[in-house]
Amino acid sequence: MTDIQQALSLVKRGANELLIEVELIEKLKSGRPLRVKAGFDPTAPDLHLGHTVLINKLRHFQELGHHVMFLIGDFTGMIGDPTGRNATRPPLSREQILENAKTYREQVFKILDPDKTEVCFNSTWFEPIGAAGMIKLAAQHTVARMLERDDFAKRYASGQPIAIHEFLYPLCQGYDSVAMRADIELGGTDQKFNLLVGRELQKHYGQSPQCILTMPLLEGLDGVNKMSKSYGNYVGIDEPPKEIFGKLMSVSDDLMWRYYELLSFRSNEEIARFKEEVAGGRNPRDVKVMLAQEIVQRFHSRQAAEDALADFEARFRQGAIPEDVEDVSIPCGAEGLGIALVLKQAGLTGSTSEALRMIEQGGVRLDGEKVSDRALVLKPGVTVVLQVGKRKFARVSLS
Amino acid sequence: MTDIQQALSLVKRGANELLIEVELIEKLKSGRPLRVKAGFDPTAPDLHLGHTVLINKLRHFQELGHHVMFLIGDFTGMIGDPTGRNATRPPLSREQILENAKTYREQVFKILDPDKTEVCFNSTWFEPIGAAGMIKLAAQHTVARMLERDDFAKRYASGQPIAIHEFLYPLCQGYDSVAMRADIELGGTDQKFNLLVGRELQKHYGQSPQCILTMPLLEGLDGVNKMSKSYGNYVGIDEPPKEIFGKLMSVSDDLMWRYYELLSFRSNEEIARFKEEVAGGRNPRDVKVMLAQEIVQRFHSRQAAEDALADFEARFRQGAIPEDVEDVSIPCGAEGLGIALVLKQAGLTGSTSEALRMIEQGGVRLDGEKVSDRALVLKPGVTVVLQVGKRKFARVSLS
Repeated sequence: MTDIQQALSLVKRGANELLIEVELIEKLKSGRPLRVKAGFDPTAPDLHLGHTVLINKLRHFQELGHHVMFLIGDFTGMIGDPTGRNATRPPLSREQILENAKTYREQVFKILDPDKTEVCFNSTWFEPIGAAGMIKLAAQHTVARMLERDDFAKRYASGQPIAIHEFLYPLCQGYDSVAMRADIELGGTDQKFNLLVGRELQKHYGQSPQCILTMPLLEGLDGVNKMSKSYGNYVGIDEPPKEIFGKLMSVSDDLMWRYYELLSFRSNEEIARFKEEVAGGRNPRDVKVMLAQEIVQRFHSRQAAEDALADFEARFRQGAIPEDVEDVSIPCGAEGLGIALVLKQAGLTGSTSEALRMIEQGGVRLDGEKVSDRALVLKPGVTVVLQVGKRKFARVSLS
Repeated sequence: MTDIQQALSLVKRGANELLIEVELIEKLKSGRPLRVKAGFDPTAPDLHLGHTVLINKLRHFQELGHHVMFLIGDFTGMIGDPTGRNATRPPLSREQILENAKTYREQVFKILDPDKTEVCFNSTWFEPIGAAGMIKLAAQHTVARMLERDDFAKRYASGQPIAIHEFLYPLCQGYDSVAMRADIELGGTDQKFNLLVGRELQKHYGQSPQCILTMPLLEGLDGVNKMSKSYGNYVGIDEPPKEIFGKLMSVSDDLMWRYYELLSFRSNEEIARFKEEVAGGRNPRDVKVMLAQEIVQRFHSRQAAEDALADFEARFRQGAIPEDVEDVSIPCGAEGLGIALVLKQAGLTGSTSEALRMIEQGGVRLDGEKVSDRALVLKPGVTVVLQVGKRKFARVSLS
């Protein structure tokens, strides 16, 4: 493999779509560091591993020697959705945004090299252009083309209102690419249309159009839904080491490979070797441990990763919890279920009063740790190993 | 009639549509001076009587004691149509706009009382709101509602491109009404949609919505097409007195009444009396003379109006041109027709060479004045009385 092929293979790993590959090859051939853009909402960053997929991809580019630009959309963030209909876009104050940006940096620089990362704010170019600049920008696109965007098309067809400023936001995102002279922009698959607007605007402004690279949404711990706080199937990057470790150890083997692809910084070659080894009989749990350690080390430290492993082994390997625990699935509402009811429904106690008594007596463990809070509520999406007394175990999934 | 009824009758004179009448009555009842808005493009003002219809209506409001605001759309004028597709909207420099505004004032203050007229520039409020303000403004309207506008609907349906900034211009016009706290806005019938946007935006900003009053397009001298320079059927307000007078005397009696309604400042009562008198046998030409004099006096002086009448009478009344001249219609291209060809085609000479000879001998008159220029070209839309020798006459219309 040539260097270019190798670079391309790393860039495309786990990606959904690369447009246009031959253009990217040309850019890579030029030998100059490419300007790599990814934009982030300046809402409070409570990042989980799903959010890091894009940042990991930025890191790939960084490893290849390119110039990474981390864009905070503070200009549009301060406006938010003026109609108030879109609750995910509240208007933010400049202070909130700066505070969020600070938290972003702290978290993101656990993945990216701060010295090789340019943090940009789009108010830098939007404030100077004024109302007149916004009108001129709006002139660069037609209503019909904008209505081709999938979600707009559906809403228009079904008579749901589209406020006109919603047409301006993709143009703003596209103009960011012009102002940043982006060679390539990364985004989620849902961003494809907006990324393409960037290409068009760059052409209009006499720049060579950016390539676009879309990344998939990461599946959550359940392997079904996208990772999301609201599904409870996520791993927050500021969770304690033991939490992160334990959650990652709980995923299926299939999902483990997916996570390797999108979350690990091991090379494609190493991962391929792991797969061969597992196919040849190696216990997949060993490979899972390496992934869990890598992620804990990234967001905490090498020491934390080792401690988490030791703790995990203490609980699982030393027989505290048997390996062939029965899986129990318990339906619950969005607000979750109290621990006593869970114990009873899982068949670990005969009644809720027995369950409460066992808790009081210190006879109930959750993932190996003693439960002392009678009022503990388990949320939907959670999977935990519950133990009553010495011998009763169940791996309970709430949904 | 009460004062309110009388005011309403003057306001509605010649108007196309008043929305919403009961609201206007309420506003009039309040007794306070209403804030009356009309907007003008800051393109080079080469005003003809068609343009003055709206300004005359402003004057009616001024006569009723209201506050007239003459808005120059300098902000949008400086942007123009950034796509360059709309040739009627070239971007103008600030200097051009100020120069045009100056010319506007000079011409418009022949109709309006300068002391009672506020001249506004919309850059005053659009420059401060910035790009963010423009986005917030865009959030106040939906794509679907905008596509209901007749011309947008047609273009969208037929696949003609609509640039997104075209959706912003009606919102800008509407926001002008907010910034100016307009009680009523005047515009052409083609402006109705935009005027209604103003109502909605005012409601959104907590103001009571403006009434809207649409005025018809004035018919040109031919009584068929709208008055327009490109049809050649216009009366420019800076034409010489004799021109204005002669052109107005050339209109049909029907059109004369229309012009009285839209161009004269005589009261409704006076005009009604004139109609009765003509119905009772008075020569309509006498009434036409009064209109022509009024208009000449408005844009020149009382003396000029008297001179123009005297000149007209010298030529027409003193027998230089008989009253029952034959009407001849001659088709011609957009570039017009040479005088010699016109004379031949009107049957006034047997050939173009005879026509040229007659011109050289001083035997050809146009509206009573000797023609000395063999190369004179008559434009389409023009109606003139041509005379060859003592007795050959024709009233020639080129089309």
